[in-house]
Amino acid sequence: MKFTIEFNPIGKRLIEKRAGLLLDIAREAGIGLKSLCGGKGKCGKCKVIVNPANQATAIEKRLLTRDEIAEGYRLACRTTVSEDTEVYVPPSSITEEQKLQISGKEIELKPLPPVKKFFLQVPRAILSDTKPDLERIKEELKRKYNVKVEGIDFNALSVMGPILRESDWSITVIVREREIIGVEPGDRTKDSFGIAIDLGTTKIATYLVNLLTGQSINIWGIANPQIAYGEDVLSRIHYGGNTKTNLEKLKSEVLKAINLAIKRVCKESKVRRGDILEGTLVGNTAMHHIFLGLPVKQLGLAPFTMVTNEPLEIKARELGFEIYSGGYFYLPPPIAGFIGSDHLAMLIASEIEKKEGNLIAIDIGTNTEIALKTKGRIISCSCASGPAFEGAHIKHGMRAAPGAIERVNINSKSLSVNVATIDDKAPLGICGSGILDAISEMLRVGILDSSGKINSGYKGVRRIKQGKSLEFLLVKDGRRKIAITQEDVSEIQLAKGAIRTGIEILLEKTGLKVNDINGVIVAGGFGTYIDPLKAVRIGMFPEIDIGKFVQIGNGAGIGAKAILVSKRLREQADRLARKIEYLELATYSHFSEYFTRAMRFPKIK
Amino acid sequence: MKFTIEFNPIGKRLIEKRAGLLLDIAREAGIGLKSLCGGKGKCGKCKVIVNPANQATAIEKRLLTRDEIAEGYRLACRTTVSEDTEVYVPPSSITEEQKLQISGKEIELKPLPPVKKFFLQVPRAILSDTKPDLERIKEELKRKYNVKVEGIDFNALSVMGPILRESDWSITVIVREREIIGVEPGDRTKDSFGIAIDLGTTKIATYLVNLLTGQSINIWGIANPQIAYGEDVLSRIHYGGNTKTNLEKLKSEVLKAINLAIKRVCKESKVRRGDILEGTLVGNTAMHHIFLGLPVKQLGLAPFTMVTNEPLEIKARELGFEIYSGGYFYLPPPIAGFIGSDHLAMLIASEIEKKEGNLIAIDIGTNTEIALKTKGRIISCSCASGPAFEGAHIKHGMRAAPGAIERVNINSKSLSVNVATIDDKAPLGICGSGILDAISEMLRVGILDSSGKINSGYKGVRRIKQGKSLEFLLVKDGRRKIAITQEDVSEIQLAKGAIRTGIEILLEKTGLKVNDINGVIVAGGFGTYIDPLKAVRIGMFPEIDIGKFVQIGNGAGIGAKAILVSKRLREQADRLARKIEYLELATYSHFSEYFTRAMRFPKIK
Repeated sequence: MKFTIEFNPIGKRLIEKRAGLLLDIAREAGIGLKSLCGGKGKCGKCKVIVNPANQATAIEKRLLTRDEIAEGYRLACRTTVSEDTEVYVPPSSITEEQKLQISGKEIELKPLPPVKKFFLQVPRAILSDTKPDLERIKEELKRKYNVKVEGIDFNALSVMGPILRESDWSITVIVREREIIGVEPGDRTKDSFGIAIDLGTTKIATYLVNLLTGQSINIWGIANPQIAYGEDVLSRIHYGGNTKTNLEKLKSEVLKAINLAIKRVCKESKVRRGDILEGTLVGNTAMHHIFLGLPVKQLGLAPFTMVTNEPLEIKARELGFEIYSGGYFYLPPPIAGFIGSDHLAMLIASEIEKKEGNLIAIDIGTNTEIALKTKGRIISCSCASGPAFEGAHIKHGMRAAPGAIERVNINSKSLSVNVATIDDKAPLGICGSGILDAISEMLRVGILDSSGKINSGYKGVRRIKQGKSLEFLLVKDGRRKIAITQEDVSEIQLAKGAIRTGIEILLEKTGLKVNDINGVIVAGGFGTYIDPLKAVRIGMFPEIDIGKFVQIGNGAGIGAKAILVSKRLREQADRLARKIEYLELATYSHFSEYFTRAMRFPKIK
Repeated sequence: MKFTIEFNPIGKRLIEKRAGLLLDIAREAGIGLKSLCGGKGKCGKCKVIVNPANQATAIEKRLLTRDEIAEGYRLACRTTVSEDTEVYVPPSSITEEQKLQISGKEIELKPLPPVKKFFLQVPRAILSDTKPDLERIKEELKRKYNVKVEGIDFNALSVMGPILRESDWSITVIVREREIIGVEPGDRTKDSFGIAIDLGTTKIATYLVNLLTGQSINIWGIANPQIAYGEDVLSRIHYGGNTKTNLEKLKSEVLKAINLAIKRVCKESKVRRGDILEGTLVGNTAMHHIFLGLPVKQLGLAPFTMVTNEPLEIKARELGFEIYSGGYFYLPPPIAGFIGSDHLAMLIASEIEKKEGNLIAIDIGTNTEIALKTKGRIISCSCASGPAFEGAHIKHGMRAAPGAIERVNINSKSLSVNVATIDDKAPLGICGSGILDAISEMLRVGILDSSGKINSGYKGVRRIKQGKSLEFLLVKDGRRKIAITQEDVSEIQLAKGAIRTGIEILLEKTGLKVNDINGVIVAGGFGTYIDPLKAVRIGMFPEIDIGKFVQIGNGAGIGAKAILVSKRLREQADRLARKIEYLELATYSHFSEYFTRAMRFPKIK
């Protein structure tokens, strides 16, 4: 028995044969439903109107209001569909487009890519000289360029003969390290490109790079489509660790997205995909493993073991990448279960090893990685700062998309609120930097105390009482209200507390005081948008001179690009990876003591 | 418009949508129609009865008798089918099963395979020791076996983590050279097998080998299914060089056949295909190239250039072999356009380098390769001896299949004939060794003179006159007559003349006389069945003491097996390949002079 499912207002119609979970069906159909918890019935983000609707489950009754249930709202992760059904997907349940911070401060370097094209005029075979094609090419490479090769890509071998003869023995040979990875007719040495990918939990940044000059010629950011399977790393590990099919799904989703991004940058920059000869990819360890199809279950269970922490070079075609078929992808090594190659790339981009003094480098995300450099040592740790700064777990939170409040000012006398939104659109919600601003301002004007409680003494128009809980209203626009709730404040306390704990334990471990810190490098999308002053004000960072903060933008992406272009930086990254000392915070004895203290807000002076 | 083609007596029914060439349609359907010329309308072997039949073409009128045309016989390679058709395939047009000589005199060697299994009990990961899985395995390999590895197969990496955990950290690691190619649960070190393949133009020999002992545990021979696309190397080159699709077809046919052979030997010997860890493959240069999907067109045109003459190691999965997915196939290097790695393997099997004196090693086939060893030099040449010794181009010729005449004796007084057939079946035709016998006997009793003419003075019952041409009747069995025709004698003269020319030119090049030769090693299926005395008698070999001949059986196969089992022999084969001096007979100035002389038969003393 077939039945039809119609998704509105998208206008997508599916014909199904078997009953299935609505969340799975929507995902299969490419409809990006939000799901922070990975379909476990915990976040309530996948709500849709279903008609006809099933009896609401206990979980739905808890996560949806009575009115919503009456209107037909249900959770897609709790709804089984087995007959003709109409589904209305509210915009709030669709994975939005985001403002992606993917550019940054590039580092200067001389390109030294591992792959290079050589133009050759190969002596023609004659009866008195019947040397094989490959031997001819090798000899000419050696004679003209003093390049000695050993291996050859199997595909290159099979096209070599016809190309030599069709192009009148004038060819371009693509050499990577000591392997011939390709042969092309005529002189194509000018067309040498590479692709660097920063595979984040929420975003994917793609850099198209000219390998001859080392310059980026196009940058493109997209959302990581795996978001539909859970917003944070742990839900992905949970989902991907569950079955091999799930892991395959996560892998193929991200591969498809990357291939599309490559296609797009190439089209825009008029570059043939076949002229992309090499790629690099960095990401946290879960992203790295999922991307390679490596098992991730053990990454979510103590002792959080990686499969490997070696740099990998894999043929693009083995991975399914649509670049030059003989080309390679280079993956710098991950450092530990929760410190990935993105951290390594960020440290390369920050040039932390070259800089003097005691330095902190911090990449803020759902997981925040912090490195402390002092006297030749680099110690790194990872803090589960959670997705609050990405707008998740916040009542009116949203990603940094158009309409998100990103700046908040509160007049300390009138308590009137001024907000700025992304693209100056009518406010739809509040994103990470806006929440940070709001909380810092609420602290400053005394609406929040240092324990994080909303001051119940305050009685103005902006105070909202929801049951027993208080909220502070930022914006009222028609029927839409955007407020900061007591729960929101707690979420931010957890997030900033985690980060601060990491910093404090690193300081303690190295015996350094806050005043010994000579600089703080802040990377990551959120890290670029925040106002360090306000981050210090809420106690996310210790009291360090604002002048010592440097915001470098997407350090991981810049590092990936640098590693793409330079063999020397690959070696440096490998050395650095082995040098980094990993500090597991969970095993640290005073952890909870530090954490409890770090969750409090500083007293306003 | 659909139409039906019914093949009888096979009983195969095809439904076709578009008009097509009958030969192609039959091939696609897996019906092995004979075709010596590769569908060029030259050999007339693909004759079938077609109903309804088209008007016979000029070519068909030339190659078929008037009676045959009246009966509806047509050539499948000249027949386009576009309506409901019945096709009768006579047994003589089907590629028969053959008697395959695939065993031989094995050489003694100590196994030293490049791939080995190691059993490990890996220390479990704990919170205070979170080393990645791969690092753990590497350390244990080093500690317990002093084995240092560098790389790891991408697939092995992805199964490593779960296998470690599911098997309680007791695993078997498969190491090849410095790469981990696989991980298995528990102790599986005993199950280490390899496969050696001798890919001939007409036959494929498969050897299943225990890598720990070096012993063959099963041998299986099948016909090369490419025969349907032309019986000799040149027709294959012609067909495969024509389009990329043709090349793909040849490649996939042979791959399918080899995979089936592997499946069969494994089933018979109760070996899991996944326990075959390594393979080797030898063959003539065209077979080598086709097998790899390398272009072959240039192999058929002067200067007959190879794509490569290097040894290749390729992952079985890249080639499509159904053995252990991380395993490799090793292909020893071909020597020249018409001297393949089978010649190299045969020389390894003959242990020619170890032996004293001036030696000839000869592998008789459609192409015959001859090597002459003298004073540390080895000079090899290739002679286009043609398929006559395989029964082709001979009126009643057939392969060495049951019912083929393999021995002939003629009473010199009564001229009565005694024949022996394979498996003592009723005689169906005559195979290579039978033809050699027949001609040698006809010479001895004076029915043939040294120019190769059938004595017209002989008037007995066995003389048949066909038009102007004479035939000598061997067998008359009911209505079936098996005779040697004047054309058959000419074919054999061409074949043996080519071989003898090769030997003579090698002798001249090295300044050796026949008496200087200390031994002749004869390899190959046909070479094993022949009586050297009779081969000398017809002048295929010079007059060398019969005691100096050694028949080693399928030398190429034995060599492939030895190379599979021993890294030392691989190195030896590589050195030998570089040492062999290739002599191109076609460019030799006195070639036609030698050839004309060599075609004559020796005078009977």
